[in-house]
Amino acid sequence: MRHALELAGRVLHTTAPNPRVGCVIVRDGRILGEGATQPPGGPHAEICALRDAAARGESVVGATFYVTLEPCSHFGRTPPCADAVVAASPGRVVVAMGDPNPQVNGAGLARLRAAGIPVATGVCLPEALALNAGFAARMSRGSPWVWLKMAASLDGRSALHNGMSQWITGPQARADGHAWRARADVVLTGMGTVLKDDPRLTVRDVPVPRQPRKAVVDGRLQIPESARLFDGEEVWVFTAHEDPVKAERLARRNARVIVLPGAEPGRVDLPAMMRWMARQHINEVHVEAGAGLSGALLSADCVDEILAYVAPVLLGDALGMVKLPMLTHLDAARRFEFIDVAPLGPDVRLRGRFADRWQTLMAAANPR
Amino acid sequence: MRHALELAGRVLHTTAPNPRVGCVIVRDGRILGEGATQPPGGPHAEICALRDAAARGESVVGATFYVTLEPCSHFGRTPPCADAVVAASPGRVVVAMGDPNPQVNGAGLARLRAAGIPVATGVCLPEALALNAGFAARMSRGSPWVWLKMAASLDGRSALHNGMSQWITGPQARADGHAWRARADVVLTGMGTVLKDDPRLTVRDVPVPRQPRKAVVDGRLQIPESARLFDGEEVWVFTAHEDPVKAERLARRNARVIVLPGAEPGRVDLPAMMRWMARQHINEVHVEAGAGLSGALLSADCVDEILAYVAPVLLGDALGMVKLPMLTHLDAARRFEFIDVAPLGPDVRLRGRFADRWQTLMAAANPR
Repeated sequence: MRHALELAGRVLHTTAPNPRVGCVIVRDGRILGEGATQPPGGPHAEICALRDAAARGESVVGATFYVTLEPCSHFGRTPPCADAVVAASPGRVVVAMGDPNPQVNGAGLARLRAAGIPVATGVCLPEALALNAGFAARMSRGSPWVWLKMAASLDGRSALHNGMSQWITGPQARADGHAWRARADVVLTGMGTVLKDDPRLTVRDVPVPRQPRKAVVDGRLQIPESARLFDGEEVWVFTAHEDPVKAERLARRNARVIVLPGAEPGRVDLPAMMRWMARQHINEVHVEAGAGLSGALLSADCVDEILAYVAPVLLGDALGMVKLPMLTHLDAARRFEFIDVAPLGPDVRLRGRFADRWQTLMAAANPR
Repeated sequence: MRHALELAGRVLHTTAPNPRVGCVIVRDGRILGEGATQPPGGPHAEICALRDAAARGESVVGATFYVTLEPCSHFGRTPPCADAVVAASPGRVVVAMGDPNPQVNGAGLARLRAAGIPVATGVCLPEALALNAGFAARMSRGSPWVWLKMAASLDGRSALHNGMSQWITGPQARADGHAWRARADVVLTGMGTVLKDDPRLTVRDVPVPRQPRKAVVDGRLQIPESARLFDGEEVWVFTAHEDPVKAERLARRNARVIVLPGAEPGRVDLPAMMRWMARQHINEVHVEAGAGLSGALLSADCVDEILAYVAPVLLGDALGMVKLPMLTHLDAARRFEFIDVAPLGPDVRLRGRFADRWQTLMAAANPR
């Protein structure tokens, strides 16, 4: 299963909106065939592994199939994998996570069991889910999996008062941040960052087969058409402000304006924005924004993970990482869990996750 | 040498103001004797190891001596260890760090070499120095080794605006903080913390043979005699304000007032305070203070290490970790190095060190 997970990890950038899945067919400790999900329309992992075994001249009858996600049981762009697995007459099938779509979870496994094939489930479930938290979130709750990328000093300052924020963290942290951008379907920022830094928001420090889509939250639709993030593919501009003239001007820059007014004037309905993106088959959203949008997303409970890069410096009187309402008691603060801590050049990367949101996904991905 | 370092680590709380030293005598991979520095007035590590070998009935002639610090060559409260080592006729002596006192560094090694004993030096030097950075700092630069303990949220907030700061981090971080308090010679705080939290500043969460001395920086000598930190042994109160009446009242609470006015009125000369403590044989200072004193010590370049506990929470609008002057350029910020990152229950401990200050000690401790 570890190897199947590794195979799935290698197709991080190419399967969206489908999940990243790996499959390994084994007999007596020897690999007969292996594969991972091909780009949409192409074969799924199980089919790739079966073809690989055939190409090697190996019979898979009676062999053990390790697959990181329950084989699909429905006709999509490809025929159901569960049928192909049954037809291959495996001796046993080991599955990490179930299909997170509540309508489908268990159907693929049931088909295998109905054919008399022994099935083991839940092996390496958390690792498999981590690879496909976005797919699972979209399928089970109708919104993408969202992580908030932040870089700051040890005392939580992400910019000086004069706006200077570049190079608080070092090149290794920046490259790692780009790797996280690269795996996401959408890179989201706010108007403040556009005005201050005019970022391109592209993936540069790591090689990628495709650039993630860019999106910006711009409550009052004030973004200049000259913004550099409009260079390239279609950009989504989420706003609370209906302005057909401006929208038309932005369309000429290949921007699509989506009007989703929230309760407060000039503020986008952020949960509605997430649901909208999920309907566009967006699994994962990488947020790289200032303290305003970052705090607003946290307050609106739209964040699943924290991806923080901390530099070995104390800045004192400077700008904070997130704008959040003042608390009068510590119990009112929403805690996450640190799930990974790693040195990264001179800096440290801290990953955090909101446990309740993860547990909901774990329940959805638990194979039936 | 690893074992000798481990022996030295076991006497962390009992050797001050002497260094923590371990010694292991080995022949053919077998330990003949071992020991670590006894409390002041008692035998040093080499003598303990020799006595241990004698008690085991082992001859150490021709054996290899591993000792974490250069054997002393002068008469102090005990006769010179270098002479005792020479008299034992070792085949070889391996030393980690030299004596950090520039007047003495190399004298012990020279005595061994003059007796025809082969000497190897610098083995595990950084590890040996880390055990005795305080002793080395006092000997080589005339001030203690100072670490700044801080606990904060991921966005660097150590208290709410209403002052609430307890329990941002969890019990494991608190116990670890007490272990660091325990190894220090002095636990230092500021008046703000005394007024806000009225701390006892004692070591409670870990067993210790002795409580470290307590000290407080109180520029205007406003500390109430009722403060709980006066319960116990003599407390040092550093002030910029001459007030014999108040000093007399505090003396009745077993407090010693030290007047060290700085350049600004009402502010203590912090570097002079550190030098004063070194003259009282203080090796290590654990600072546990608010943003004011923490920032002032950083600004006065009185801090060697950062000991930060970071909790998995974002607090937004709350109080910062350190008060530092506003910067206009990031290059002006003094960077440290992360030397250790470790999860601690739900929290993460980040240790940082100012590289230049460490390198100065390394040079002083490099055996000649």
